[in-house]
Amino acid sequence: MNIKETIEFLQNAEDILILTHQSPDGDTIGSAYALSYAFTQMGKRSRIECADMFGDKYTFLGISYTEERFEPKSIIAVDVADTKLLGSLEDLYCDNIDLCIDHHISNTEYAKLSCIDVNAAACCELVYRLLTLLDIKMTPQIAQSLYTGITTDTGCFRFSNTTAETHRIAANLLECKFAYDIINRNMFEIKTMERIRLESILISEMETYFNNRCHMAVIKREVMDNLGLLDSDLEGITSITTQVGSVSVGVLLKEKTINEYKVSLRSTGIIDVAKISKQLGGGGHLKAAGCMLKGTVEQVKETVIDALSQHLQWGSVGAE
Amino acid sequence: MNIKETIEFLQNAEDILILTHQSPDGDTIGSAYALSYAFTQMGKRSRIECADMFGDKYTFLGISYTEERFEPKSIIAVDVADTKLLGSLEDLYCDNIDLCIDHHISNTEYAKLSCIDVNAAACCELVYRLLTLLDIKMTPQIAQSLYTGITTDTGCFRFSNTTAETHRIAANLLECKFAYDIINRNMFEIKTMERIRLESILISEMETYFNNRCHMAVIKREVMDNLGLLDSDLEGITSITTQVGSVSVGVLLKEKTINEYKVSLRSTGIIDVAKISKQLGGGGHLKAAGCMLKGTVEQVKETVIDALSQHLQWGSVGAE
Repeated sequence: MNIKETIEFLQNAEDILILTHQSPDGDTIGSAYALSYAFTQMGKRSRIECADMFGDKYTFLGISYTEERFEPKSIIAVDVADTKLLGSLEDLYCDNIDLCIDHHISNTEYAKLSCIDVNAAACCELVYRLLTLLDIKMTPQIAQSLYTGITTDTGCFRFSNTTAETHRIAANLLECKFAYDIINRNMFEIKTMERIRLESILISEMETYFNNRCHMAVIKREVMDNLGLLDSDLEGITSITTQVGSVSVGVLLKEKTINEYKVSLRSTGIIDVAKISKQLGGGGHLKAAGCMLKGTVEQVKETVIDALSQHLQWGSVGAE
Repeated sequence: MNIKETIEFLQNAEDILILTHQSPDGDTIGSAYALSYAFTQMGKRSRIECADMFGDKYTFLGISYTEERFEPKSIIAVDVADTKLLGSLEDLYCDNIDLCIDHHISNTEYAKLSCIDVNAAACCELVYRLLTLLDIKMTPQIAQSLYTGITTDTGCFRFSNTTAETHRIAANLLECKFAYDIINRNMFEIKTMERIRLESILISEMETYFNNRCHMAVIKREVMDNLGLLDSDLEGITSITTQVGSVSVGVLLKEKTINEYKVSLRSTGIIDVAKISKQLGGGGHLKAAGCMLKGTVEQVKETVIDALSQHLQWGSVGAE
């Protein structure tokens, strides 16, 4: 895991650029904010860059980074498994990333130094451990940044990646006093009327395969545009494909551009969707993975169903 | 809190009847199961009684209690704030309850001995502490019973009643190895198609008051019957009234019989619904409370809106 080298790197880093992955979620954003607040505490300049805008629901994290522009001397990627996930920033930075802090099993070790723990529920868990080793004072700002990442990636401590250690870290963070209940309400509860309408549409049009063991929803660009929804309004929406008890794998296809779809896969049990996703050129975790596929919606569906068939076809009942 | 007396009582209790509240949820059931598994470990006979059936999703808790019938010598109520909440068992037992273990601020202290901690997120938190003091070995069965109560009452660690202590207890429980992810999936994620249809109906018919600061849904008995849904299929459904960001108070009216409604109130912020509920003859917590009201649906709505008006009418915007 290179903990010692990582600590040394963080101690010596100057003018730090922190990179998050595209379609940023709470874990990549929370990791970046926690690190940049820590760098400020250490008297260092830092800033955060991302190919996409951060959603409005993250504005509570405040401003952690230096406003002024500077030429970065140290580049760190957080929660980024592959330089492809830097999106439009890939070409600019992919060859110069000094340190990658990550917890994805699919990490391609593209950085000069990799600090990876695939057993960490969230990248923020790993950042918590690093900040503790660096003797950073746990302020409410850092605590809520880290909590945001942990709650995002564990579905608020729901998923099987949650460990006793995750809960112990959460306990320590809660002692710093911040409005975790409001964070959770923003993350998991609040929906706009437009999002609620989209979910109604997806539920009414849900396709079922393999004797109800797979549910698949398709988000069309046109529907998004009609409802005035942005990609950043869709966080967590894949869970609507797994809410019926018989489902082993939920699939969400999101039309990115004409004939290009983002495929999100969720497993509710023993099926390893990281493996299926890798087969399709993507990556991710055992129970939550994804990839990009080109083709018409019918072609993309066929490709996904085909990849799923070897895992699901044997089961005529939801037998796991 | 009478901890010492409670421990003594539990050590000396024999042939124990454990009572849960009507419309049983994960906290009252989990508390009862954990206690009865502990009594078995202590070589004592116990059984659990409830006015209503436990939902199918609790069958994983196993059989904790003695199958044989016996005349109880000790009677304990768990998570029962008021003898009224014993439902059809009230008349039989209300005058003979030896010990009440609870965390409701509205507890009426009806038992000979009350062990109440209103700061505990769940009654199961309190039971955890008692079992620890009794040196009970934390088996997977006891751990998953306690976890079920804690996750139920904190909305899986989402709500503001969750404390650092809650997370520390969860960490200790997780070390006993049980499928908490499946418990959480059963509690919070899995829905039947009929439940999904009911939610669609409730969302499409949602009424809004006080400039969107209150959303109100009504579950009609006829709709339930048409969908083939039982009361035990409705756990957690009140949360659909609070999913829009502007909502301060969510209200769910459930038709129990002709001209009788169960009113569930949820607060998303500073409004104390326990107070409003008490005003209407009910009880509960600051952010989750309820009562029973008689009258036509229009009369019940008017009564609730009237009680809410002093708290909500001043706010023309969702200003909290």
